[in-house]
Amino acid sequence: MAGSPFDWIDEQARLRAQAGLVRTLRPRPAESHLLDLAGNDYLGLTRHPEVTAAAAAAAHRWGAGATGSRLVTGTTELHAELERDLADFCGFEAALVLSSGYAANLAAVTALAPHGSLIVSDAGNHASLIDGCRLARGTTQVVPHADPAAVRKALGTHEGPAVVVSDSVFSVDGDATPLSELAAVCREAGAGLLVDDAHGLGVLGDGGRGAPHAAGLAGSADTVVTVTLSKSLGSQGGAVLGPAKVIAHLVNAARTLIFDTGLAPAAAGSALAALRLLRREPERAARARAVATKLHELLTEEGLSAVRPDAAVVSVRAPSPEAAVRWAADCRREGLAVGCFRPPSVPDGVSRLRLTARADLSDAQVAEAVATISRTAP
Amino acid sequence: MAGSPFDWIDEQARLRAQAGLVRTLRPRPAESHLLDLAGNDYLGLTRHPEVTAAAAAAAHRWGAGATGSRLVTGTTELHAELERDLADFCGFEAALVLSSGYAANLAAVTALAPHGSLIVSDAGNHASLIDGCRLARGTTQVVPHADPAAVRKALGTHEGPAVVVSDSVFSVDGDATPLSELAAVCREAGAGLLVDDAHGLGVLGDGGRGAPHAAGLAGSADTVVTVTLSKSLGSQGGAVLGPAKVIAHLVNAARTLIFDTGLAPAAAGSALAALRLLRREPERAARARAVATKLHELLTEEGLSAVRPDAAVVSVRAPSPEAAVRWAADCRREGLAVGCFRPPSVPDGVSRLRLTARADLSDAQVAEAVATISRTAP
Ligand SMILES: Cc1ncc(COP(=O)(O)O)c(C=O)c1O
Ligand SMILES: Cc1ncc(COP(=O)(O)O)c(C=O)c1O
Repeated sequence: MAGSPFDWIDEQARLRAQAGLVRTLRPRPAESHLLDLAGNDYLGLTRHPEVTAAAAAAAHRWGAGATGSRLVTGTTELHAELERDLADFCGFEAALVLSSGYAANLAAVTALAPHGSLIVSDAGNHASLIDGCRLARGTTQVVPHADPAAVRKALGTHEGPAVVVSDSVFSVDGDATPLSELAAVCREAGAGLLVDDAHGLGVLGDGGRGAPHAAGLAGSADTVVTVTLSKSLGSQGGAVLGPAKVIAHLVNAARTLIFDTGLAPAAAGSALAALRLLRREPERAARARAVATKLHELLTEEGLSAVRPDAAVVSVRAPSPEAAVRWAADCRREGLAVGCFRPPSVPDGVSRLRLTARADLSDAQVAEAVATISRTAP
Repeated sequence: MAGSPFDWIDEQARLRAQAGLVRTLRPRPAESHLLDLAGNDYLGLTRHPEVTAAAAAAAHRWGAGATGSRLVTGTTELHAELERDLADFCGFEAALVLSSGYAANLAAVTALAPHGSLIVSDAGNHASLIDGCRLARGTTQVVPHADPAAVRKALGTHEGPAVVVSDSVFSVDGDATPLSELAAVCREAGAGLLVDDAHGLGVLGDGGRGAPHAAGLAGSADTVVTVTLSKSLGSQGGAVLGPAKVIAHLVNAARTLIFDTGLAPAAAGSALAALRLLRREPERAARARAVATKLHELLTEEGLSAVRPDAAVVSVRAPSPEAAVRWAADCRREGLAVGCFRPPSVPDGVSRLRLTARADLSDAQVAEAVATISRTAP
């Protein structure tokens, strides 16, 4: 009997099981007793009544979906308002909202790297930037992680348009790239700089204006920034921020804008409400950073190998993928949800627990989380 | 003085302006006097009170965002419920919800085309399938549009895993692929079949169960289907449907699932409500098809060159891009919103008006739309 055309999947599944790397989805209830240090709701806004009310109001007013591409029927006045507010908050001339941060990165990288151009990409970049490089018409050169000298060298080899692509804060370890040095290297070589500030917006910079703002790059003619609406802004969606001419170029050239349905009104409305809350309560950004610093301090005191956080992500190394999985499961059994990153989601093959600081965690909750992690450590 | 690193954009903008191909975003108000034949809300559900109420309720109950990857905190019981219901409705073993139809296509193509495999892709496929092919590790062979014989020939050249990728209904012209023949060719060659049913779900098949269901492919071990939640279901998001082992494979291998924040609860909730409405009112699917047929009939009577619709999209050819733009603008001035597709969004370089049939259009509205299109024809 002939097999199915997808039988090759069985072998991959077997190898995955053998290596202890099988992932499954675990649906969560609406109310949980778990202390959540796994989600990316850095400012504690995703369930804020103003934010959820704005989502509901937008659905009622604008409908449940955008009904079409941003270029056809999918741009509402709400999308335009969100774009103005995001650009203004982060200090850029213009913004373009897409259906996810992933889509925003695909859009930005592909639109800024035409045929014949060079993309210089940090080895630790997020999957969506990497996929953007693979889709772009330009040639990609991957450089060692957070290494401006390597970027300078890569740029030196190329004539014609070039763009340097980097996360501001890397999602796995929570470390930041040396953004000012990177910008200086770009300027010197006449290259553009594309920064993914997914983990910087709402956490870094004056009142959470993000890493590029903190590095004095806001409004610069040679810097383009991508953000997500799904972390600090507690919603869904992504955006590209930059010079108006770059944004107009994206409208005309970015496939994930042109051929994708616009962001749902509820997501646009809730992101806008979260942004306004952050403007009103800028101390949330500082609190998220303080919680991260405290987490790191206490974990280190417990003798654990935690990476000093540059934003709100704290990573703790585990001896093996199996140990990481067991550790995360033990934490969960004791009431604490933590992220568990292991191959192939980690660029260096090192498994870790990934903790996220939230502005709405109390000092007692931070201490409790550390006690649980320490008690269950392998 | 040195220019900006993005100055190369100016030349592209100039060429675009010269060719009359500049696109801009046009924000729409919440209430419009325009008759909308441009959006993809085929069943008229995006503003249905049950659907918007479900979006609002989900935001209140689950929060404005999913807070993390589906693999970390981003899977709620609501996502799981939507997946069960989608799989059951369309007749497949399992389903996986992603943040957009675009992301679903990237996930499905890349996960089903490993290194050494062959992808056979229809020349008229949607941009997201094409990008999936470009990201996949397998080798892509593009075949002429809707041509099973060409697919058979392409498959004949290859040893090892192969997958045939096609839209069920093509987004530009609204024509359908000969799905049963395509499936027979795949079966004969032992290849998998991946069908993008973005424009079939809710419109084709028994009660809107989609083109694969209509072709007797539901539940088949060698068929995988992608759908979007943003058209007939009036919401946002996408899904992959197929054998449970394929869905489990996607959970472990698809980058746009693993590295993307889960779909916002409001979007999941509204899509689920729309699906339940469709179950209760299956006549909506037939009505959308009847409206499309009527549109085509009346346009043809007026001497216009419209493509006979296989689903709910009706395309009308225009003599040039400039004429198409002017035509769409004239319609708008007379109270009718239509889509206008022109290079580079059309694979064959032919500009068209694109009309969408909606189940909630009255016969009088259909007649009015045709009168306007005819009166303003170039
Ligand atoms: C650095 C980084 N960039 C982009 C994204 C993608 O954003 P989104 O989840 O909104 O698609 C993520 C996480 O999801 C991320 O961590
Ligand atoms: C055929 C087809 N596939 C996929 C998509 C992408 O779906 P979404 O807009 O939900 O990302 C679209 C349209 O947007 C489409 O027309």
